[in-house]
Amino acid sequence: MIGVLVSGAGTNLQALIDARLPIACVGSNKPDVMGLERAAKAGIETGVFELDSYPDRSARDTALADWLLGSGAEWIVLAGYMHVLTPAFLSRFPRRVINLHPALLPSFPGAHPIDDALAYGVRWTGVSVHFVDEGVDTGPIILQEPVEVRNDDNAETLAERIHSVEHRLLPEAARLCLDGRVCLGESSRRVMIT
Amino acid sequence: MIGVLVSGAGTNLQALIDARLPIACVGSNKPDVMGLERAAKAGIETGVFELDSYPDRSARDTALADWLLGSGAEWIVLAGYMHVLTPAFLSRFPRRVINLHPALLPSFPGAHPIDDALAYGVRWTGVSVHFVDEGVDTGPIILQEPVEVRNDDNAETLAERIHSVEHRLLPEAARLCLDGRVCLGESSRRVMIT
Repeated sequence: MIGVLVSGAGTNLQALIDARLPIACVGSNKPDVMGLERAAKAGIETGVFELDSYPDRSARDTALADWLLGSGAEWIVLAGYMHVLTPAFLSRFPRRVINLHPALLPSFPGAHPIDDALAYGVRWTGVSVHFVDEGVDTGPIILQEPVEVRNDDNAETLAERIHSVEHRLLPEAARLCLDGRVCLGESSRRVMIT
Repeated sequence: MIGVLVSGAGTNLQALIDARLPIACVGSNKPDVMGLERAAKAGIETGVFELDSYPDRSARDTALADWLLGSGAEWIVLAGYMHVLTPAFLSRFPRRVINLHPALLPSFPGAHPIDDALAYGVRWTGVSVHFVDEGVDTGPIILQEPVEVRNDDNAETLAERIHSVEHRLLPEAARLCLDGRVCLGESSRRVMIT
């Protein structure tokens, strides 16, 4: 089972639901977001863990991890979750948290990868699914897929093509994780898909 | 006409020759390299510009630029040329020097892009042809092509597939430059192919 974390619209959560991934629960750091509505509509347990409700980030992340584990989540999938996870969280799911990033990492980490790719002038960007570590978009890569940048692309047209790849690649990666086909050794950050 | 600079085997020079690009001359910073032999065999004028023969790098680059201009070269193509070009050179060919890099820039700049890509664990790397500026592999990108990294790739097998893309992409980019189809505005580093 996977636990999914969202912060907003949850279009990638919808892709996971549509792909019939077994989803234990959906958590959010914000109340009243569309992602929670999508989960409720699909009959999935939801939870809200606002930072303001806890003494600090670490306490919030501990409560979130407890809840996810209690719901039966073995793998955690970030689907547009916009908070960095603390060691208090990551240590509970060692090498079991995956995230989506709309660029071919290590190019264009951070909050504005589509704009950054257009400003740099690359001819190809893409989508990465990677393990989450304590850095920003620095964890070992599970799957990637390139997306061509066209002469006439703007941020909107490029984002549309990137998002459609995301909606395919994230469910595929989650499925591979659940099936035990994603192998990451101790001595290398190179992931093998078996 | 293009002028080509080499430092070694010149396999990418050979790709330019085989693609029947109009080559004015081939310069090298080293004597007795295979690249010079390939040029001679194709009946192309050659020149050697060793750093040791000049008071400094800037003087060498000025002599090299004079020679290239005198040979009728309008565009300069680096085909495995391993010295950084000084402003003394680049100012003579403004936005007219292109280079090949075996990675999808801005990922993995520098001297070991194929090893670096394997060590990072990307699932896709590739080839970039870019304008040369005073940085290391930082200039505006003209063409790119992704190359998939396979589970069982080592540096040798990956390099082989990357080199075969290089041998196609560099002649294609040189042709686009000569045909005036590569447009780089003053206000953006985004190159348009027309």
